[in-house]
Amino acid sequence: MRDPVQFIKEEVRTLEPYSLVSQRARIKLNQNENAWETPQQIKEETLRRLRDRVWSRYPGLRTSDLHERLAKFSGWKPEGVIAGNGSNELIQAVLMVTAGKGRRVVINEPTFALYKQISTVLESEVVSVSLTDNLTYDLNALRRSINTVQPSVTIICSPNNPTGCIIEQSDLISLLEETHGLVVVDEAYFEFSGQSVVPLLEKHSNLVVLRTFSKAMAMAALRIGYLIAAPEVVKEISKAVLPYNLNVVSQTAAEVAMEMYETTLACLVELICNERERVYSELQKIRDLDPVQSRANFMLIRSELPVKHVFNELRRRDILVRDISSYPRLQDYFRISVGTPEENDALLAALREITRDYE
Amino acid sequence: MRDPVQFIKEEVRTLEPYSLVSQRARIKLNQNENAWETPQQIKEETLRRLRDRVWSRYPGLRTSDLHERLAKFSGWKPEGVIAGNGSNELIQAVLMVTAGKGRRVVINEPTFALYKQISTVLESEVVSVSLTDNLTYDLNALRRSINTVQPSVTIICSPNNPTGCIIEQSDLISLLEETHGLVVVDEAYFEFSGQSVVPLLEKHSNLVVLRTFSKAMAMAALRIGYLIAAPEVVKEISKAVLPYNLNVVSQTAAEVAMEMYETTLACLVELICNERERVYSELQKIRDLDPVQSRANFMLIRSELPVKHVFNELRRRDILVRDISSYPRLQDYFRISVGTPEENDALLAALREITRDYE
Repeated sequence: MRDPVQFIKEEVRTLEPYSLVSQRARIKLNQNENAWETPQQIKEETLRRLRDRVWSRYPGLRTSDLHERLAKFSGWKPEGVIAGNGSNELIQAVLMVTAGKGRRVVINEPTFALYKQISTVLESEVVSVSLTDNLTYDLNALRRSINTVQPSVTIICSPNNPTGCIIEQSDLISLLEETHGLVVVDEAYFEFSGQSVVPLLEKHSNLVVLRTFSKAMAMAALRIGYLIAAPEVVKEISKAVLPYNLNVVSQTAAEVAMEMYETTLACLVELICNERERVYSELQKIRDLDPVQSRANFMLIRSELPVKHVFNELRRRDILVRDISSYPRLQDYFRISVGTPEENDALLAALREITRDYE
Repeated sequence: MRDPVQFIKEEVRTLEPYSLVSQRARIKLNQNENAWETPQQIKEETLRRLRDRVWSRYPGLRTSDLHERLAKFSGWKPEGVIAGNGSNELIQAVLMVTAGKGRRVVINEPTFALYKQISTVLESEVVSVSLTDNLTYDLNALRRSINTVQPSVTIICSPNNPTGCIIEQSDLISLLEETHGLVVVDEAYFEFSGQSVVPLLEKHSNLVVLRTFSKAMAMAALRIGYLIAAPEVVKEISKAVLPYNLNVVSQTAAEVAMEMYETTLACLVELICNERERVYSELQKIRDLDPVQSRANFMLIRSELPVKHVFNELRRRDILVRDISSYPRLQDYFRISVGTPEENDALLAALREITRDYE
């Protein structure tokens, strides 16, 4: 019998799959999720509207109603918006129309793993630029890299997962002006940073902004993301977006979440930001731990203790954090999501205990 | 200012977007949808389970529960199954790991437009094999093409959209043995044909089968598809499937639909098949119209009258069919979905009137 995978691309066969074992825990702080469940009013209203909708027919092809609402919500034009099945799908669509054999993608290291994964499947060359020693974006290195390799696309995650740093607006402008390709800014966590690069779209038509309903909007299970860019860029990216990509439930939930954002979700974002600052201060007082200031709903912590030890001791207490010590430059770090006040208190107490008892 | 699309692939820029204007009509027979709404029991049970699930957390990464149920439902092994956001997403995943610059994809013409669209975005060469004059698969032409171009993947839609023809099992076996690449059989409509190629998976590890919940399962709005193949092939294709690709609602709905299939959906499939045969016989009696026998829930009709005229006259009566006269070889044809008995009666009456009044 013939080898059925012989025609699978070499780049794919040698690639490690993106994987994360699904784990449950009393306190789950490993996936940068919103610590609060979707507000009950949003769930009830979504379910109510769903009962009346037809399920057996295709949803609208380009979900233009939703595009108009997303445009209004984000202060941009409807013809410059694409909704997707999570922002992952839209990262993929951007890469499908720009990346391929003989093309280059510039990313930063460390960052969200999916950019590299998809670029590699598409057989494009991935050029990684290291963050600075302070774990912030290295503007000069990025500019050099862009000038040298002439990438089709440069991807900036801001705030960056897993470091929490953001790209300064003036730095981003210099990248947008330097490159001939697209610059994608993944704003999955922007609500926690208090700033957005969307206003730059007016002057910079090679900027593409990605957003998600999985973090501040508390809807990771429903898979909703959107992309904002110049209409002429959106027109091209749309050709790689599958017809009927967004199911009717996610469409409905997104509409309800936007309608109720100010009255239900905005205060949770504020609460999470306050908790982030409180957790940061408390962590600074713990011997052997050194938190990294973050603009997102998560935070890196450098540990003098072996990371595996801290991870396992937390796990024993039914607290799940993210061991990212295999990432480049992060061998001494682990990542926590900011939880509810009670969850954060439990985490802090556990960390005090673990560092005290070590030896 | 620089041209923001200059780094978009040439193949993409020259591509026409896949588009279909969303239209409403009293009788909507243009998208091969299930004529019946999702059974009320399935909707209610899905909504009930959803209320109790967490929405703010990510769903499982690989939805292994659902994979087990899909495997059982289709008579295959769980490690040989991938669930997706509609089968469109899985067609794309297969092509992402096999298609690219310097690689070839064999398809048939006419067939579902998306295969060519995605292959083109991925910069692979699309080699089209024409159906026979009888609008059936041309085995000899397919074999010649496979031998000549050595495709990474050959795509067969069976039953084929829009012609309704199927690939004979012995023909498929000869293709599977002839090619060194993968053979994808898109079984979106298999329930209406009474046969499946899944039993061939045991002996043919280069076969990939695609299925959907959008047709017989009456859930087009929820976007659920699945892929069945040898585990070693699934392992590679999975690398191009985005993490958390299936939202929690679609997962839940798929589970409920499988549990209730025998008691709610199976009889609708039978009803649709019976209606298809009745409509076919009635159409044969109409002067100037010539229906094409179909194994799906839709049917081509050849018209002696100009197709635009028939389409417009039906539209005037609030009946929407699909004008596919721009497809290769189909300039004299339009396509109808099989509707409910009442819808079909209305369609037949309208067609009798239109053909009678013409001149």
